[in-house]
Amino acid sequence: MRLISLALMCTLLIGCGSETTTSTEATSAQPEKTYNWKLVTTWPKNFPGLGLAPENFAKDVERMSNGRLKIKVYGAGQMVPALEVFDAVSQGTAEVGHGAAYYWKGKIPAGVFFTAVPFGLNAQEMNAWIHYGGGLELWRELYEPFNLIPFAGGNTGVQMAGWFNREIKSMDDIRGLKMRIPGLGGEVISRAGGIAVNIPGGELYTSMQTGVIDATEWVGPYNDRAFGLHQVAKYYYYPGWHEPGPTLELIINKQAYETLPADLQAIVEVAARAANQDMLDEYTARNNAALVELVENHGVEVKQLPDDVIAELQRLSVEVVEEVAAVNPLSRRIADSLKEFAKQSKSYHAISEEAFYNARQK
Amino acid sequence: MRLISLALMCTLLIGCGSETTTSTEATSAQPEKTYNWKLVTTWPKNFPGLGLAPENFAKDVERMSNGRLKIKVYGAGQMVPALEVFDAVSQGTAEVGHGAAYYWKGKIPAGVFFTAVPFGLNAQEMNAWIHYGGGLELWRELYEPFNLIPFAGGNTGVQMAGWFNREIKSMDDIRGLKMRIPGLGGEVISRAGGIAVNIPGGELYTSMQTGVIDATEWVGPYNDRAFGLHQVAKYYYYPGWHEPGPTLELIINKQAYETLPADLQAIVEVAARAANQDMLDEYTARNNAALVELVENHGVEVKQLPDDVIAELQRLSVEVVEEVAAVNPLSRRIADSLKEFAKQSKSYHAISEEAFYNARQK
Repeated sequence: MRLISLALMCTLLIGCGSETTTSTEATSAQPEKTYNWKLVTTWPKNFPGLGLAPENFAKDVERMSNGRLKIKVYGAGQMVPALEVFDAVSQGTAEVGHGAAYYWKGKIPAGVFFTAVPFGLNAQEMNAWIHYGGGLELWRELYEPFNLIPFAGGNTGVQMAGWFNREIKSMDDIRGLKMRIPGLGGEVISRAGGIAVNIPGGELYTSMQTGVIDATEWVGPYNDRAFGLHQVAKYYYYPGWHEPGPTLELIINKQAYETLPADLQAIVEVAARAANQDMLDEYTARNNAALVELVENHGVEVKQLPDDVIAELQRLSVEVVEEVAAVNPLSRRIADSLKEFAKQSKSYHAISEEAFYNARQK
Repeated sequence: MRLISLALMCTLLIGCGSETTTSTEATSAQPEKTYNWKLVTTWPKNFPGLGLAPENFAKDVERMSNGRLKIKVYGAGQMVPALEVFDAVSQGTAEVGHGAAYYWKGKIPAGVFFTAVPFGLNAQEMNAWIHYGGGLELWRELYEPFNLIPFAGGNTGVQMAGWFNREIKSMDDIRGLKMRIPGLGGEVISRAGGIAVNIPGGELYTSMQTGVIDATEWVGPYNDRAFGLHQVAKYYYYPGWHEPGPTLELIINKQAYETLPADLQAIVEVAARAANQDMLDEYTARNNAALVELVENHGVEVKQLPDDVIAELQRLSVEVVEEVAAVNPLSRRIADSLKEFAKQSKSYHAISEEAFYNARQK
């Protein structure tokens, strides 16, 4: 019976096919299922850099699938608030989310390891650890109980240390400093006697202007200039010790992903990889130009954190990382994997990327 | 009539669907055209790193297109010799090629700008220039007369300066040095009084062993160890001033690309972008581990080129770049675009990536 019905179907398909290959209507009449997905983000809709990655991802998926997988992107608050993205995708309210793993540290402390570790890996190293150093497998294991499949979803490159209205000459100047700095960087500032707070990006300008905070980190010249932070701060400090290779994430609801046919799964996976690179390319190009403008047209004073401050922040960072590692065995395995990778990477990059930067004339 | 047959087909499809969704035969009976492409490369088949990028690219394209675009990969010499890849794709003998633009410098001198400029951009910067700094548009303009569409097709990261059987204490030690070093790096060595030669990778071991050459650059620890170069050389020098961000290329025959429907074009484009990142990720991870092994298990002596040698090589590099820029107006525009991008990038990376490398403890 089955053989006969298959043969009949094939005959009919071939019979109809010759009439309909050039007709779009006819094509859509073929039984290829179309999927309509929702993507929720932790960024304002179309926010430069961070917010464009999910848009580009959705466009690539739609183009490659010839419209069989359509993904509608919602900015923070349009469907769910920024900090509910993880839960929304976990529960299937939306099929995809875009944000950063360290936003969920209350729920999953080890998530921070997949975004940014102070004095840890930069963008090139994070991408290598995730894709060829065992990172992605650990990340999947971490998110599995939450019904989520994570992918690297972009990188800003090393960030700036931030905007300060107080000069940092020694660790004494960190004590009592009220600074907007989330993640492990914030924990380090707290340990150093500062007051680390988290404030949404859109409120940074006013908070600095009114003196609610003395300092804030955001991203780098491209994004910081867009917020006008140079108008409300005296100094722009580097290097961005707290977030050397901040990695964003694309999270996919597991059931939604498994429902897709294999070709659409591949399209999602490869589009995520491309989006991951694309964001770093964009930041790298636009940060350059934005820094020139900030310095030359807005007279921004760029200052370097003193060596002894850097050394002390690094010492405190080790303690903070150890605290997260100790939370549970999986957290320990992730921290160990990162540590081993960082050890090798530091030793090779000291004679390759770093040595090249130092050899090249400014 | 058509409506009735369509309705009939749909009914039958729905009826059969529940029985046949997992049957490949039923799916392939649909009249979507299948394309079979050939991809020729300048690397031995499945060569680690360099040669795996085209394989991964082909696999991703096939997976994403559900087999509608199949790409068969040929290693160097299997279909055409390594250095005829450009012509073969230009003429349509193969639809795709994978190699490096500086191999065609006899035909297109400005091609070198899209692979590696001594003391120029590293991998992160090359990717940014190509995708957000106007590089890709210039590259397409350069290849347009040859009927080719170029895409960035991978990056090794900054290479090592190479393997030497003569210690380099000053520029005097470069004079008379017979070194395998292609591209603009080779021109620089020639200007410095050395003898730059090009020898295929597979012959490097014997050439070093028999003293035909005194020195050779190849790639970095991962690839160099595979060739056993540590067995035939005394010193392993850094930094890789001559190829800071060597970019590989995927070239597509223009007519072949234009024949594809839009969804398959998008699949080719996004798969290329993913392959481009994937190679850098792989090298970054594997170079780390390979360096550790070379130093700890094989006692390789890693040495740094002296500052005054680096400074002189950099001075000569400016002359060599200027010579290529002067070839024609398009070459000049490409050189100017790179120069302007490098100026901004050096100034931003000095306070971001470079400053972070220097701040981080080894």
